[in-house]
Amino acid sequence: MVLLFRMKTSVFRMLNSSEGYEKSIFSPPFVLFSDIINFSASLVRCSLRFPVFLIFFTCNYQCFIGEESVAAGEGSILTDNPTWIIDPIDGTTNFVHRFPFVAVSIGFVVNKKIEFGIVYSCVEDKMYTARKGKGAFCNGQKLKVSGQEDITKSLLVTELGSNRDPETIKIVLSNMERLLSIPIHGIRAVGTAAVNMCLVAAGGADAYYEMGIHCWDMAGAGIIITEAGGVLLDVSGGPFDLMSRRIIAASSRPIAERIAKALQIIPLKRDDATN
Amino acid sequence: MVLLFRMKTSVFRMLNSSEGYEKSIFSPPFVLFSDIINFSASLVRCSLRFPVFLIFFTCNYQCFIGEESVAAGEGSILTDNPTWIIDPIDGTTNFVHRFPFVAVSIGFVVNKKIEFGIVYSCVEDKMYTARKGKGAFCNGQKLKVSGQEDITKSLLVTELGSNRDPETIKIVLSNMERLLSIPIHGIRAVGTAAVNMCLVAAGGADAYYEMGIHCWDMAGAGIIITEAGGVLLDVSGGPFDLMSRRIIAASSRPIAERIAKALQIIPLKRDDATN
Repeated sequence: MVLLFRMKTSVFRMLNSSEGYEKSIFSPPFVLFSDIINFSASLVRCSLRFPVFLIFFTCNYQCFIGEESVAAGEGSILTDNPTWIIDPIDGTTNFVHRFPFVAVSIGFVVNKKIEFGIVYSCVEDKMYTARKGKGAFCNGQKLKVSGQEDITKSLLVTELGSNRDPETIKIVLSNMERLLSIPIHGIRAVGTAAVNMCLVAAGGADAYYEMGIHCWDMAGAGIIITEAGGVLLDVSGGPFDLMSRRIIAASSRPIAERIAKALQIIPLKRDDATN
Repeated sequence: MVLLFRMKTSVFRMLNSSEGYEKSIFSPPFVLFSDIINFSASLVRCSLRFPVFLIFFTCNYQCFIGEESVAAGEGSILTDNPTWIIDPIDGTTNFVHRFPFVAVSIGFVVNKKIEFGIVYSCVEDKMYTARKGKGAFCNGQKLKVSGQEDITKSLLVTELGSNRDPETIKIVLSNMERLLSIPIHGIRAVGTAAVNMCLVAAGGADAYYEMGIHCWDMAGAGIIITEAGGVLLDVSGGPFDLMSRRIIAASSRPIAERIAKALQIIPLKRDDATN
């Protein structure tokens, strides 16, 4: 209940201070019966995944993209419409094992740009928030990236991922080898993309990179990175693409570009691929 | 001050309830001037490393092994004498980068056996303690390992280490590849051996392994693992050796043995090597 209240408070505070789309978000402020029917299967499956309930009951006429809706057969086409991109449990393997990093991630996207993001690291009780042009915060404290520009003095975060295809494992480990050999100070992995990115935003690590994650892992924390002064890049070194399933989130552009230069790219099907 | 008080309280509580060696620990309960002279260089260097001060001022006639004394040219020969094995900052790279896992690790060894251990994970404010035959605790709550015996359902913790020798990096990553290919659920790395081991003791991960660490990284948490019901093994599958610089700390013997079977061993100079 405390968590629900905190999530709700954060969402409402941010929405109430937004300027362009609050009316569409809250009109009409009730739920259609057909929506309940459509959502019922995933709602039952996600009975403990409270943010889905929260968002569902507070705003109805927006688009949704989330692991649960995609698993239920819905697509992930990102339009210009206001869209909630949600991961009710980022760090599912951690959750299953009681490894103490699990996050709820919520991003709100309009015209394909992230407008605000919320990441709640549940076990740590840390609420990260950011809104475009308004800064990033953790439990109310302003966040700032480390600003490190020298890769040889950097601490990185990434994950080994859940793909056990031998060729993918080889590329993931080969990328680590290339980075360690630069050299860098070290690599950490706490098991959730959203928390990894928030650690970069808080200045605890200098960059995060990963391939194979999804838009719902990145949407909430993406704007937290940029509002904390960080940089988002694609692993190719080009512009970040929320639907590409790959990211470099860094404390500075030089570090992001140096990581991009080192990485071998894993072939992936995009989140918005139609087949 | 709070931390000092908590450390002191824990040490005193454990010492006061021990039966065989409390007299020798506390006699005489004062500090010799010559000791102060001998320690002064490292004390100044470690002015923020409070546990050294604490132990130094509360007990004098024991042996010490720690990163600071070894760096100052002292040896690491483990005798049968009561010996404090201390790491004032486990997770130095994390500490430098403000990555939120840093621990103080204290182990007390008699006849080469760990009698009790304390690991204080400072940022999390978690005090892990264990005493032989008396169980393991975190902030007073009893700890128990997961008990997982099936490696294919396991979450492991390890580190990429600080050695940037290309051959060592290759073995470290090759070991990860062998384990991921079994397959396992995942690998995490938070950057401190002591906290990694405490996560296993708390049931948040099923095993930790590493080569290249030191006795002061393992002495505090080693007994926390065994008192939580876990198992310590050498990476060869043989008995754990505190001075060998290598460890498997697991929730069960089958998982420890399966990891040992997968690992390629990194050649290392022992902590008690005389040249």
